Amino acid sequence: MKFSILTLFPNMISSYLGESIMKRALEKNQVEVEIIDIRNFATSPQKQVDDYQFGGGRGMVLMIEPLVKAIRSVETKDSLKILLTPQGKTWNQKIAREFNLSKEHIILIAGHYEGFDERILNYIDMEVSIGDFIITGGELAALVIIDSLIRITPGVIDDSSHEQESFENDLLDFPVYTKPLNFEGFQVPEVLTSGHHKNIQNFREEAALLKTIKQRPDIIVENNLSDYQKTIYKKIKMKGDK
Amino acid sequence: MKFSILTLFPNMISSYLGESIMKRALEKNQVEVEIIDIRNFATSPQKQVDDYQFGGGRGMVLMIEPLVKAIRSVETKDSLKILLTPQGKTWNQKIAREFNLSKEHIILIAGHYEGFDERILNYIDMEVSIGDFIITGGELAALVIIDSLIRITPGVIDDSSHEQESFENDLLDFPVYTKPLNFEGFQVPEVLTSGHHKNIQNFREEAALLKTIKQRPDIIVENNLSDYQKTIYKKIKMKGDK
Repeated sequence: MKFSILTLFPNMISSYLGESIMKRALEKNQVEVEIIDIRNFATSPQKQVDDYQFGGGRGMVLMIEPLVKAIRSVETKDSLKILLTPQGKTWNQKIAREFNLSKEHIILIAGHYEGFDERILNYIDMEVSIGDFIITGGELAALVIIDSLIRITPGVIDDSSHEQESFENDLLDFPVYTKPLNFEGFQVPEVLTSGHHKNIQNFREEAALLKTIKQRPDIIVENNLSDYQKTIYKKIKMKGDK
Repeated sequence: MKFSILTLFPNMISSYLGESIMKRALEKNQVEVEIIDIRNFATSPQKQVDDYQFGGGRGMVLMIEPLVKAIRSVETKDSLKILLTPQGKTWNQKIAREFNLSKEHIILIAGHYEGFDERILNYIDMEVSIGDFIITGGELAALVIIDSLIRITPGVIDDSSHEQESFENDLLDFPVYTKPLNFEGFQVPEVLTSGHHKNIQNFREEAALLKTIKQRPDIIVENNLSDYQKTIYKKIKMKGDK
């Protein structure tokens, strides 16, 4: 999988990618990331990339010409061109899974200032947002998307890690504990040190379900629950109906 | 407003904050950010911060002791302690606005590996997520939250910029255009160069509404629409009902 990131702030991207799991994946050539400075495609001698908006009003708008030139410098027929905007489709783990399997080359276009010249929509495939909030530029959004895609690329981290994490099976993750057994009076649940595999499994399934019911009931898909979870879920719903 | 970020990867945070608007806000002392390396609070000579989980299973768990020590090193009675996890309340612009007005000191705790020892929940105020996806650590989430809060801090960017941006008035932003008037056959809408203020205003209100109806109908609050938008919205709904 290859990523091309178009940005006015290349350092914001490169410094993050130089750390931790991202760095390892890049060094092992499990993924490829190319960072393109949009300013290099400015046509004026002053390297201007933004200008006042027609119709008047606040702030500067990213000019279309340098953007389109930057896109053309990296795109191939297999490229998916994503514009990062608060108006886009909200990124989630399902899209990450799907794109990880189906896309070879993703171009991520990060803006700044008041936004892109709207005509850029004629040159991209989709708009993506990472959530209903406003940040100063698209760089963090690009990093979130790349990070979520790189970490599920086979071989980047221990594949078994993905099986039970949040959103992978329409539930939040179950709680985990490590040493010490007692910390300031707070104990590790006894079942986890019992060595009884089946009980541990049941404890985790129940805890994941209860946490999801409490914090994110909207993501539960009843058909995807385990048999044990279905039994608990039905009991809870019956209580709720009374 | 002050932020304390607890992390195992301080460079991920500091490099982003050294760029663009964040850098300027920090230099002008409009906000304060302190980065705390959790590893400095490890108690073993090997500076261990993670360990295997009780009950068996994938991956390492962040130990509670260094975390609690790190929290205690920065907290005051005015601190809001936020744990960054996929299980938390989803961050959005409304929370950003509210916290920007009401919180003086926010502690953001970023994890890595398979998660936090669950007992950490006894030491924090709330869990926050930036979306329904999994990333390798909490650092990008911390940066998203800080960025969204810093940019709405009065004086950091031109305050009029906030009035009409996405999510601020339950609508997506209206489209913007800059030079050239014609780019590869794509024109700037004529009304924007007409100089007719009222028509420009109407064009923008209608465009923002239509874009939101098409892409994010879920965020529209009818009562918050302008009178002009209400008229259009009613017509569209009537058509939809036929």
